[in-house]
Amino acid sequence: MTNSLKNNKALLIIDMQKGSFLPSTPQFDSEGVVKRINHISKIFRNHKYTVIVIQHDGSIFDKYVPNTPDWKLLDDLEVNSSDIFLNKTANDAFYNTSLDTTLRALSIDELYITGCATDFCVSSTIQSALIKDYNIIVVEDAHTAGDRPHSKAKKLIAHYNWVWKNMMPTNGKILVKNTEQVEEMV
Amino acid sequence: MTNSLKNNKALLIIDMQKGSFLPSTPQFDSEGVVKRINHISKIFRNHKYTVIVIQHDGSIFDKYVPNTPDWKLLDDLEVNSSDIFLNKTANDAFYNTSLDTTLRALSIDELYITGCATDFCVSSTIQSALIKDYNIIVVEDAHTAGDRPHSKAKKLIAHYNWVWKNMMPTNGKILVKNTEQVEEMV
Repeated sequence: MTNSLKNNKALLIIDMQKGSFLPSTPQFDSEGVVKRINHISKIFRNHKYTVIVIQHDGSIFDKYVPNTPDWKLLDDLEVNSSDIFLNKTANDAFYNTSLDTTLRALSIDELYITGCATDFCVSSTIQSALIKDYNIIVVEDAHTAGDRPHSKAKKLIAHYNWVWKNMMPTNGKILVKNTEQVEEMV
Repeated sequence: MTNSLKNNKALLIIDMQKGSFLPSTPQFDSEGVVKRINHISKIFRNHKYTVIVIQHDGSIFDKYVPNTPDWKLLDDLEVNSSDIFLNKTANDAFYNTSLDTTLRALSIDELYITGCATDFCVSSTIQSALIKDYNIIVVEDAHTAGDRPHSKAKKLIAHYNWVWKNMMPTNGKILVKNTEQVEEMV
């Protein structure tokens, strides 16, 4: 596909922080997910599309406190000074942050969603973006979660991708595509 | 527990419509779920708390068209002329509906959530209510879903209840309680 006429796309990278990827809290295929996020973010930066890196600030529970080791981004995650960096305190990256204002100021209406965890912050942010009428592309092989009490991570990720494929659109649309397909789209 | 000083509670009954409970689309323990919703709605009405019955209007896809058989509420679901009836078109019951305005006009800030389907409209509505700062009580044994490609319904429902128990609060809190516990709370 050819490039969009409008520079209206943003990549959201959610909570790829050290504290969520400890040996005690392994996330499914974390190495592969980081690799794919890096691949996509490089394409976005090459096209001068916006890359937004979101980090959880869990100060209220004394976890992921800004600038402490847990809060820091994974060493292997490639970021750039041209990226936008945002802290959030809820699961939803829009809640009490400047994300919506920033996106609207930049006339961005198409969000490519990646990160961690599938069933918490990724899911909450997708739900919130959809009811704000953004067009959403979930990158199905670039978000992850750990094993849960009632489901292994791999099945869980597949389930959430299936749900997002079957949701009702709002004024925004929601698509679920893999990294290779995203590469063709941007 | 004694009653709240404020009449600030509402029960949301989401999408308990005939078209979702066909023999071809069974939902987990539907009989039990209907029974528990009826039990709770009766308590709410006795206390003069608000009961809101939400129905999906899928006209855009020629499904659940208002007043057709699929759209209609289950025969066994007890409703009352004092209930508030709302149609919605997205998964989220707040999206393009009067739900938020109605709740705020009635000074309701505590929502008891029940209905179908756990991973679609129930989940989307909970996410939306939470970022609107409502206090939420998910009634863990009064929402349901069908088997999915990657998970049996029973495990899926347990997973979503587990997620909601572990979400970050916003200015609203989220609790997950069973029918018996809810009975003690209202």
